[in-house]
Amino acid sequence: MNTIPTRKAFFVSDRTGITAEMLGHSLLSQFEGVPFKEVTLPFVDSVEQAQKAVQQINRAHETDGVRPLVFSTLVDPDVSSVIATADALYLDCFQVFISPMEQELGLSHTHEIGRAHRVRNVDEYHARIEAVNFVLAHDDGVSTKELVHADIILVGVSRCGKTPTCLYLGLQYGIRAANYPLIPEDFRDMKLPARLDKFRRKLFGLTIQADRLAQIRNERRPNSNYAQIENCQYEIDRAELLMRQEGIPFINATNRSIEELATTILHQAQLQRQVY
Amino acid sequence: MNTIPTRKAFFVSDRTGITAEMLGHSLLSQFEGVPFKEVTLPFVDSVEQAQKAVQQINRAHETDGVRPLVFSTLVDPDVSSVIATADALYLDCFQVFISPMEQELGLSHTHEIGRAHRVRNVDEYHARIEAVNFVLAHDDGVSTKELVHADIILVGVSRCGKTPTCLYLGLQYGIRAANYPLIPEDFRDMKLPARLDKFRRKLFGLTIQADRLAQIRNERRPNSNYAQIENCQYEIDRAELLMRQEGIPFINATNRSIEELATTILHQAQLQRQVY
Repeated sequence: MNTIPTRKAFFVSDRTGITAEMLGHSLLSQFEGVPFKEVTLPFVDSVEQAQKAVQQINRAHETDGVRPLVFSTLVDPDVSSVIATADALYLDCFQVFISPMEQELGLSHTHEIGRAHRVRNVDEYHARIEAVNFVLAHDDGVSTKELVHADIILVGVSRCGKTPTCLYLGLQYGIRAANYPLIPEDFRDMKLPARLDKFRRKLFGLTIQADRLAQIRNERRPNSNYAQIENCQYEIDRAELLMRQEGIPFINATNRSIEELATTILHQAQLQRQVY
Repeated sequence: MNTIPTRKAFFVSDRTGITAEMLGHSLLSQFEGVPFKEVTLPFVDSVEQAQKAVQQINRAHETDGVRPLVFSTLVDPDVSSVIATADALYLDCFQVFISPMEQELGLSHTHEIGRAHRVRNVDEYHARIEAVNFVLAHDDGVSTKELVHADIILVGVSRCGKTPTCLYLGLQYGIRAANYPLIPEDFRDMKLPARLDKFRRKLFGLTIQADRLAQIRNERRPNSNYAQIENCQYEIDRAELLMRQEGIPFINATNRSIEELATTILHQAQLQRQVY
């Protein structure tokens, strides 16, 4: 069956490797059917480190029988020129953009590595930490006393993805995201929890497909009524009906990653991010 | 003082915008002193959306008096060709790499948008969710019963950054990261908490500068002994001594972002990530 050999893709960076990884991964995802093995080589910040990386890349070629792909975001030309000698398709994700930017801005770049993910200012760091603390303190409806300070309140049935989405909003964007579960009592009365009444404009819903929810719930509580597909379907139907009735916008989490959920909500709810 | 005009930088994407944002932000950080205003335009997935984006970009030029920079990761050439007409420096972060990749792989790319941050498989999604649940259940030493399942256990003084780092490890990499605080009793005895004894090989330390810690603690408990710089310095000195004595590797969180802390630990502790 598998006639296409697995090919290694290296993400080489002088710091965390997050940028090279993300761009490279995004490009690789355009070639469906090619089995890639992704390898991140972070903190390649000297000629010696670069030489070691080249050895690893060249070994991959020998082992796999196909040339690896190398995505790099190296700032130091002495380091990147070593990586360029590797026996691979070398894609420099840094230099190719820096030259036109220098021309446009009429400036040279700083050549300083590790600027992207550095703590740019203490305020930004605090915004993230405070947002994460807020998310943790307002997870799953545990506390409602400070909902007045929430930027957004996610609602939905238990285990539809509210918590990780809130954490992502807090960590990445400094958004104070609370979440509040919709539970069988709410569906019986077809009313929102009373404590959410005055925060109606902050509410945003998540929903999910029943089979997926049943699968997730089964891992928590195997063979429970809670996890049964009929019960999941009932809760989802009622939750969606309730959200429509109350005019709460909602999106479906089933085929969206945590990143997609968070950025979609950021965009649709027009939240002001605290962190770039 | 400020003679350099603020210049807008747009990150245009057909999906979340995360990749364009990250690469663009990384490149912009190389031009220190230029005041950039970063604007993400996600979900630009039609010619109409692209035309709206072009209007917004052109307005920025008029308002600011300088050409904006535009970083795009658009897959559909019909959409990207519209963006290319904007009155800006247009940096296409997609097409420039796709052609050499097609040649190398002997394949055309799928032209399908939104592949990068899609849920690639249910296992990966579960790994992230389970890791986040694990982090939440093992935050701040609240539970030790499942430390045997931890991939890593972060230790350090209160408020040095353990929780957000663990959450990042869980969310981004599917790592089950627990954390356990080092407290005055531990410093008095100069012994690790007994419950950590059998997990010694999983321990990894965080430390921080005293002035920074005092600032963070002051926001939580203003004017407390807990937040006083002398107390912070004492706790940090003892914690570092204890970690050295016990052979626990540790890194300093003061000038590192959450991303840097997480990836540094991932790398140094050679953790196996569950998610790419």
